Amino acid sequence: MQFELTEALVEQVEQLIEQQDNKELKILLNEYHYADVAEILDELNLDEATYIIKLLDSETTSDVLMELDEDNREKILENLSIKEIAEEIEELDTDDAADIINELPEDRRQAVISNIEDEEHQAEIRELLAYDEDTAGGLMAKELVKVYETWTVAGCLRRIRGQAKDVTRVHSIYVVTKEEKLIGRLSLKDLITAKNEQKIADIAKDNVDFVNVNDDVEDVARVMSKYDLEAIPVVDDNQILLGRITIDDIVDVMKEEAEKDYQLAAGISQDVEADDSIWQLTRARIPWLFLGLIGGVGAFLIMEGFHEAFSKYAILFFFTPLIAAMAGNVGVQSSAIIVQGLANDDIKGSINSRLMKEMLLAALNGIILAIFLFLFVWVSQQDAKTAFAISISLVVVIIVAGLIGTFVPLFLDKRGIDPAIATGPFITTSNDIFGILIYFTIAKLILGI
Amino acid sequence: MQFELTEALVEQVEQLIEQQDNKELKILLNEYHYADVAEILDELNLDEATYIIKLLDSETTSDVLMELDEDNREKILENLSIKEIAEEIEELDTDDAADIINELPEDRRQAVISNIEDEEHQAEIRELLAYDEDTAGGLMAKELVKVYETWTVAGCLRRIRGQAKDVTRVHSIYVVTKEEKLIGRLSLKDLITAKNEQKIADIAKDNVDFVNVNDDVEDVARVMSKYDLEAIPVVDDNQILLGRITIDDIVDVMKEEAEKDYQLAAGISQDVEADDSIWQLTRARIPWLFLGLIGGVGAFLIMEGFHEAFSKYAILFFFTPLIAAMAGNVGVQSSAIIVQGLANDDIKGSINSRLMKEMLLAALNGIILAIFLFLFVWVSQQDAKTAFAISISLVVVIIVAGLIGTFVPLFLDKRGIDPAIATGPFITTSNDIFGILIYFTIAKLILGI
Repeated sequence: MQFELTEALVEQVEQLIEQQDNKELKILLNEYHYADVAEILDELNLDEATYIIKLLDSETTSDVLMELDEDNREKILENLSIKEIAEEIEELDTDDAADIINELPEDRRQAVISNIEDEEHQAEIRELLAYDEDTAGGLMAKELVKVYETWTVAGCLRRIRGQAKDVTRVHSIYVVTKEEKLIGRLSLKDLITAKNEQKIADIAKDNVDFVNVNDDVEDVARVMSKYDLEAIPVVDDNQILLGRITIDDIVDVMKEEAEKDYQLAAGISQDVEADDSIWQLTRARIPWLFLGLIGGVGAFLIMEGFHEAFSKYAILFFFTPLIAAMAGNVGVQSSAIIVQGLANDDIKGSINSRLMKEMLLAALNGIILAIFLFLFVWVSQQDAKTAFAISISLVVVIIVAGLIGTFVPLFLDKRGIDPAIATGPFITTSNDIFGILIYFTIAKLILGI
Repeated sequence: MQFELTEALVEQVEQLIEQQDNKELKILLNEYHYADVAEILDELNLDEATYIIKLLDSETTSDVLMELDEDNREKILENLSIKEIAEEIEELDTDDAADIINELPEDRRQAVISNIEDEEHQAEIRELLAYDEDTAGGLMAKELVKVYETWTVAGCLRRIRGQAKDVTRVHSIYVVTKEEKLIGRLSLKDLITAKNEQKIADIAKDNVDFVNVNDDVEDVARVMSKYDLEAIPVVDDNQILLGRITIDDIVDVMKEEAEKDYQLAAGISQDVEADDSIWQLTRARIPWLFLGLIGGVGAFLIMEGFHEAFSKYAILFFFTPLIAAMAGNVGVQSSAIIVQGLANDDIKGSINSRLMKEMLLAALNGIILAIFLFLFVWVSQQDAKTAFAISISLVVVIIVAGLIGTFVPLFLDKRGIDPAIATGPFITTSNDIFGILIYFTIAKLILGI
């Protein structure tokens, strides 16, 4: 069953909408997985997409809404009435419901929540909305299967049929005390292979992994990836079972994190896609470009400050782009390795030993490159002293750039700031400035300008 | 059950190893999840780690081996005999077994495979080793639960107990014809809630997602993420069921892909970590630094070529770092957005319309920045003509840099080359060269040098 989004299919849907052939539309779209229907809808214009959402029943459209491009979903929701949105919310799992409500403008949120007919569903959603988006509480869903330690296997199988109906994927069944404290887990496999009269408390596994409702989502992702989990229960400080997080939500979090880090490294300050409007893309890209411009002006002022060196050593200025580029490249490499190491929790040992290692590494790299540069300048300019001045500057600049690239992310991380900010234009711009300053200072010293 | 790797714990393990207190070691380590034991082993030296691997039974150590840092695992395997490695392989799932064998040096591989006692296991591993690492075949495992369409529910539950024993997580049960063709799926939940006398063919769902054994792993990851799947069956061109891929393997693939792209964007050519040796890090970083050096020399030659402009317009040279930096920043931004779009399969529409959009976007950004630059140069230098020359150059350079940053990844992608190579130092270096060349050419034209 391989879905392919073709122009022909989109046109077919558009035509059926124009003819308002609801019967055919339902037959056609019901063949497809909701994620594929969402792909089709992302290709339609706003009116056509809204038409489909209103046409299909809420059980389908709620899932489709979750898979739509964020911007498209926002526009469609604007077109739906409070009651219509509430109907979609009724069908969604609590975590998706909370996400959708958070996307609504503030003035619509309370109205939508109050219109949710299922009171238990409404209460659970209100509970989830209280948690911070970037924590386990903000990611979890209330839907899970739990059994009490006092039940028997036979009683279990009977009772969980009801719970299991609402849970898309059961994974582990959580075992709780009568005070609702999480104490163990079971799999359906365990249940099936056990004898009917055994007590749950006897067959449950007591080594159950869990996360706290206030844990950062990145820590949750790390735990689930490390232990190869597909779902993890979420508890409060008293071990009361509050909800669970499933691996598909973590996969989405991982993708978003990777994209955010990648964009930060390229100097893009908001979450943009290639197909966003020119205005949105400009707003995301201009801030860091502006930083680069200011850095360039800084470099200009430094070079202007050294301009008496011009008459005799114009060549120094011709090598400035090289020095600046190397400083930038080394800084970006160092910071990338550190940022990845921090993300994987791989950074052990003291900061001092790490800076020492980076210094040696940069010195080694710098000397290798400086030798080649020295030979080039010496041969092309027939001037060993200038060649030496430029080469020595390169080594020092590379060492300093490497240290800045290593130290700044570590420093930010210790202060609780996302170290990924220190990659990209931030590092290249600051290393350009430092690099040019060091370069001319050293050259001035060696050449006696 | 929150595991924390403390120095005290590592020291405790080291002491027990020194005292050769095997009984205590087993009691201590058996408390921990294999992923946690692997973390402990990563902190020990080679002899200590090998001691533990030989001490614990293969059922535990095989899982621990899979979780070790790659480099540590390689060293430990060198210390084990062929028979000892084969014993670990016996306990592993076929996909992990194939991965370990692929990590062994060629001269040891055949010997290890031949020493696997379980003949079926041996044959399955040989089959998996035939597939390319980056395809579904190279990622899949042979362990799965399948039932034939002619069975009844009661017969099913009886027979799958045996199959389910070998499968860590059952997820979907796959339904096949007697020719082994995949035609549907079931969940344990479906089985439990069905009546005993129903036929499998009647309760099976026929909309089963699958991938082909030759599909790229990145496409597999995309499908699983899109449909929120936790496992997906793998079939050959005749729809014969060959194996399955589970979400934990895809999560690992996603992490590795994200790290690889991030490192490429920073100009690091191999898979290195912050704790690798200075020699390993140098080998990974020097190639791109060398490219930067050559680019710097290119910039030098260009500037030297324009040196007659010096006497009258030295200021032009002082702004070179600014021009080069902006060209680099814009290029990196553009390429990052395109590369991400390609990875998410978001790039639709013709290349021409995309280049046109990038041109407008770059023109807009360039003009905004150029206005500020013009004001700065005009006010500080009291020379409108020079300010104009520099500002116009900035706009043109930004447009060209944006086009290069957009076009090169698209071009590489169409040729089947990883577009992520066109991020980072490749783009910054080429944009530096083009930027400086364009800058001086325009300045020469406008200022009549």
